[in-house]
Amino acid sequence: MSAARFDVIGIGNAIVDIIGRCDESYLATIGTAKGSMRLVGADDIKKIYATMGPATEISGGSAANTIAGVASFGGKPAFIGTIADDEFGKIFTHDIRSIGVTFDVTPFANGAPTSRSLILVTPDGERTMNTFLGISTSLSEFQLNLDLIRNSEILYLEGYLFDESQAKQAFRKALQTAKAAGRKVALTLSDGFCVDRHRDEFIELIRSGIDILFANESEIKSLYQTESFDLAAANASKDAKLAVLTRSAKGSVILSESNSIEIAPEPISELVDTTGAGDLYAAGFLFGYSKGYELPICGRLASLAAAEIISHIGARPEISLAELARQKGLI
Amino acid sequence: MSAARFDVIGIGNAIVDIIGRCDESYLATIGTAKGSMRLVGADDIKKIYATMGPATEISGGSAANTIAGVASFGGKPAFIGTIADDEFGKIFTHDIRSIGVTFDVTPFANGAPTSRSLILVTPDGERTMNTFLGISTSLSEFQLNLDLIRNSEILYLEGYLFDESQAKQAFRKALQTAKAAGRKVALTLSDGFCVDRHRDEFIELIRSGIDILFANESEIKSLYQTESFDLAAANASKDAKLAVLTRSAKGSVILSESNSIEIAPEPISELVDTTGAGDLYAAGFLFGYSKGYELPICGRLASLAAAEIISHIGARPEISLAELARQKGLI
Repeated sequence: MSAARFDVIGIGNAIVDIIGRCDESYLATIGTAKGSMRLVGADDIKKIYATMGPATEISGGSAANTIAGVASFGGKPAFIGTIADDEFGKIFTHDIRSIGVTFDVTPFANGAPTSRSLILVTPDGERTMNTFLGISTSLSEFQLNLDLIRNSEILYLEGYLFDESQAKQAFRKALQTAKAAGRKVALTLSDGFCVDRHRDEFIELIRSGIDILFANESEIKSLYQTESFDLAAANASKDAKLAVLTRSAKGSVILSESNSIEIAPEPISELVDTTGAGDLYAAGFLFGYSKGYELPICGRLASLAAAEIISHIGARPEISLAELARQKGLI
Repeated sequence: MSAARFDVIGIGNAIVDIIGRCDESYLATIGTAKGSMRLVGADDIKKIYATMGPATEISGGSAANTIAGVASFGGKPAFIGTIADDEFGKIFTHDIRSIGVTFDVTPFANGAPTSRSLILVTPDGERTMNTFLGISTSLSEFQLNLDLIRNSEILYLEGYLFDESQAKQAFRKALQTAKAAGRKVALTLSDGFCVDRHRDEFIELIRSGIDILFANESEIKSLYQTESFDLAAANASKDAKLAVLTRSAKGSVILSESNSIEIAPEPISELVDTTGAGDLYAAGFLFGYSKGYELPICGRLASLAAAEIISHIGARPEISLAELARQKGLI
């Protein structure tokens, strides 16, 4: 195994978030469940946009947010995702490159527009997402830069991509490539409904060699079809080498077959927008893990990053996470 | 004079702001003066964007921000500005219509893209703007809906448009139309450098019938080419019926030929981004004035709106200004 040039490489949807505030009642009028992510078509996204309030555009995408977090910690990350040759593609590219992430993809000149997600934030800070995948559905194994994958300490896969069959194939190819180069592979389940749609394939992928599995409470319960978090957690720690499970205000737990580490949540002064909480949790953990920190420190870096992101609108860090971690004496 | 259907109609550039943070040293590398607004071409805006940090896209434009503020206070405003048939034009249109502003323009199908401004915010919260005017330079008297102007209590003109000769002509046409219908006309000087470029024409326009002139300290000094604020203020109160002059942390002053009212600034907990401070000050004043409030109340509504906008990133209100004004017992 040669030395890795990158700490983490992420593969996921390249999305620009369109974030606006709404009342609880508005979610009912567009027929969506609070806290969920649903996929919508081109017509539906136009309809919802036409009725929602004023918004702010910020680069997003689950794994892309995680990779941006790794960069903010001072890590050396790369990202793979598909964009179109349009304004949103330019915004996504600018934002991720400007923070030092290697993002070297050719925009698709024809076809669907760059992906966007209408994110509605209710007064309680909870986010509900309506995602138009657009060109993201064109991700296939042909977009993978295998050299980048071989040269990255950790490969990080976004569960949302499981909604596309050729992306699933790309995941398998990426996983095999990373494994053959002696690298670690991490996966996030992304969303309970997404897990519901692809349960068996997720379990098969995890068993085929996932080193670090990220999931929140509802995702892991959905994966193992149980109402018991403990039972789901026990299963996860058998299927993946490491299961890293987040439980919102209850903190998180890092599980291996022989060990369990509880991580307290980082206190925050005000919950503004939960968008990106899980993504940034993964960022802190992966940064710490790639640098060889002990698991309890990885967990604290994860909680720190999650706390920063939910204190403001948008899922990309507004301040240097490296600076924040130094202030806390963690790095 | 028939009853007005609208409280305020604004004419200005329709711009999407691309807001990012930077160090003081970065401004030197791109050769711009802190706190200024400069016009840049298509090539320059690409170059600056390529080197600046990650950004957030939020609808902006000086008079458009003011009009958004009037809507947030519960007023009934309209806006005129030109957009292209592109993503940024769609974003601008969505954001202004979604808050109840009448914005009824046909996007230009060919020609330059929708205007955008790269706004760099230094750690002290000061904003420096690099604006690519794009399709905004196509504003002419042919885009004016004269019926809207006739039916609006106050016509509000953005000084930035003075950089374009056909827009200047549109200003004169709009002013004559409003005056003939018995309406009030307000003007903001927008920027000291802009004043420098068009001093004589600004003074001519003001003397031709401006009822309310908005300016900050550097703009009003630039207009009358004096280092004395008092002298500049005295001149302004002669040329316009009402001169409303802002002085940042020193508050503001409302002057007529016979009267002077000092307005204290509204206290804030943290200065985050000064973008839109003057725009929202004007919003509060114009809303109050159109509703017939006494001048000291108009000034307090103005200060309240300015304080809200500088407490967060972006130049559009994040909370209801009507709610805020009610909490303060102003409306």
